[in-house]
Amino acid sequence: MTAFVSPSTGRQLKAVLFDTFGTVVDWRSGVAAEIRKFGDRHGLALDPFGLADKWRAEYQPSMETVRSGHRSYVPLDQLHLENLKRVLERSGLSPAGFTSEDLGELNRAWERLPAWPDSRDGLHKLKSRYVIGPLSNGNTALLVNMGKNAELPWDVVVGLDLLRVYKPDPAAYLGAASVLRLDPGEVMLVAAHNGDLGAARAAGLATAFVPRPSEHGPGQTTDLVPASGWDAVAADFIQLAQMLTEGAALAH
Amino acid sequence: MTAFVSPSTGRQLKAVLFDTFGTVVDWRSGVAAEIRKFGDRHGLALDPFGLADKWRAEYQPSMETVRSGHRSYVPLDQLHLENLKRVLERSGLSPAGFTSEDLGELNRAWERLPAWPDSRDGLHKLKSRYVIGPLSNGNTALLVNMGKNAELPWDVVVGLDLLRVYKPDPAAYLGAASVLRLDPGEVMLVAAHNGDLGAARAAGLATAFVPRPSEHGPGQTTDLVPASGWDAVAADFIQLAQMLTEGAALAH
Repeated sequence: MTAFVSPSTGRQLKAVLFDTFGTVVDWRSGVAAEIRKFGDRHGLALDPFGLADKWRAEYQPSMETVRSGHRSYVPLDQLHLENLKRVLERSGLSPAGFTSEDLGELNRAWERLPAWPDSRDGLHKLKSRYVIGPLSNGNTALLVNMGKNAELPWDVVVGLDLLRVYKPDPAAYLGAASVLRLDPGEVMLVAAHNGDLGAARAAGLATAFVPRPSEHGPGQTTDLVPASGWDAVAADFIQLAQMLTEGAALAH
Repeated sequence: MTAFVSPSTGRQLKAVLFDTFGTVVDWRSGVAAEIRKFGDRHGLALDPFGLADKWRAEYQPSMETVRSGHRSYVPLDQLHLENLKRVLERSGLSPAGFTSEDLGELNRAWERLPAWPDSRDGLHKLKSRYVIGPLSNGNTALLVNMGKNAELPWDVVVGLDLLRVYKPDPAAYLGAASVLRLDPGEVMLVAAHNGDLGAARAAGLATAFVPRPSEHGPGQTTDLVPASGWDAVAADFIQLAQMLTEGAALAH
């Protein structure tokens, strides 16, 4: 079985790394479910999906404070907790009304996200041929617990806390390849987000797009189609695994 | 199923980390087998076990040049390659007589070490209850390839190259716990080496001793018995898994 050769890098793939939030796991349903439990525990009538969307909306801006150099690196789970408190405050729920254990428990929602239905099977098939792991802004502890809860068969879990950067900083993509002692062109990023793939390609990685059209719920309008000629485009991880392990033709 | 409580740390275990060379995998048989292949490829009559022992004998001295501050951190696979060239030279085989591909291939012997017969089953059982991973002086790429070749079901693989230290530097044990967002007392080191366990305990970790009486061959005289009252002492990983998952009494 020959390895997939990336048309853009000209190299045989050795490792296939994955964006996680939205690409491997369904953060919106998972976080909404945990918010519902939180509301039930505290006798509050909350809007689980609305709050999940508001919490996620704080994600990029909070990482940007680090990427821009306005603040030194802090791990994602700390940003998630700060963002949660901000969202609760804006929703008229004073964070001071909850114990740090309550808030910490809700914050761990990001470690209990359900995998998309095809994720596990596709990862197992890819694992038979490539080194697989996350290439996520999540910190290592978060990703290890997520992987254990969702039974993701990663070969390696190195969170970007170990490199103290956040995607799309080129150092995130280059560092992930370097940790595996591989050339960037031997590493593929799989993501449901064209922006992430663009940054990975600029750093010299191979790229694959797998759309997740309900990541943001029924009304999603972004990342429904590939925005560029990525090395591979697949409907789900199972088709991607077939393309990368059975030498199938490119999807475009 | 309640978690094992470490008598020495008083904490419930969350993660069980393993020394790898000698504890999880049989470096001597594995390296000797690769040296035999190397000799056959080059029509050389070598002493596989003798050379394996000489190569391993360079391990601690080479790391000591880094631990002592005489040289800045370099990953273990680089030290292994330097040590290999030194051993070949001393054996009357000029490294210059081989291509860098030849030597690199032999150096990857450390990524192809066989697991001890009980390792995989014990790790699978422990994985059902704890986060499991290596806590090894190997660098991440080496450990990822070793784990894939030996089918070790690690939840996390963070080599000490990411912390730029070598055991028994306390920063190695403390850093491993920190990466997992755990207190040192919630993490257990499993090792076949009393010295490694002593350093782990000094850093605040829980400890378990599993003897590997043939690690150094038939004449082994070291690390045959526990040198201290470690939290657990087991004959192999299967017994260790029973002790840590079935609330069995301590082995001492």
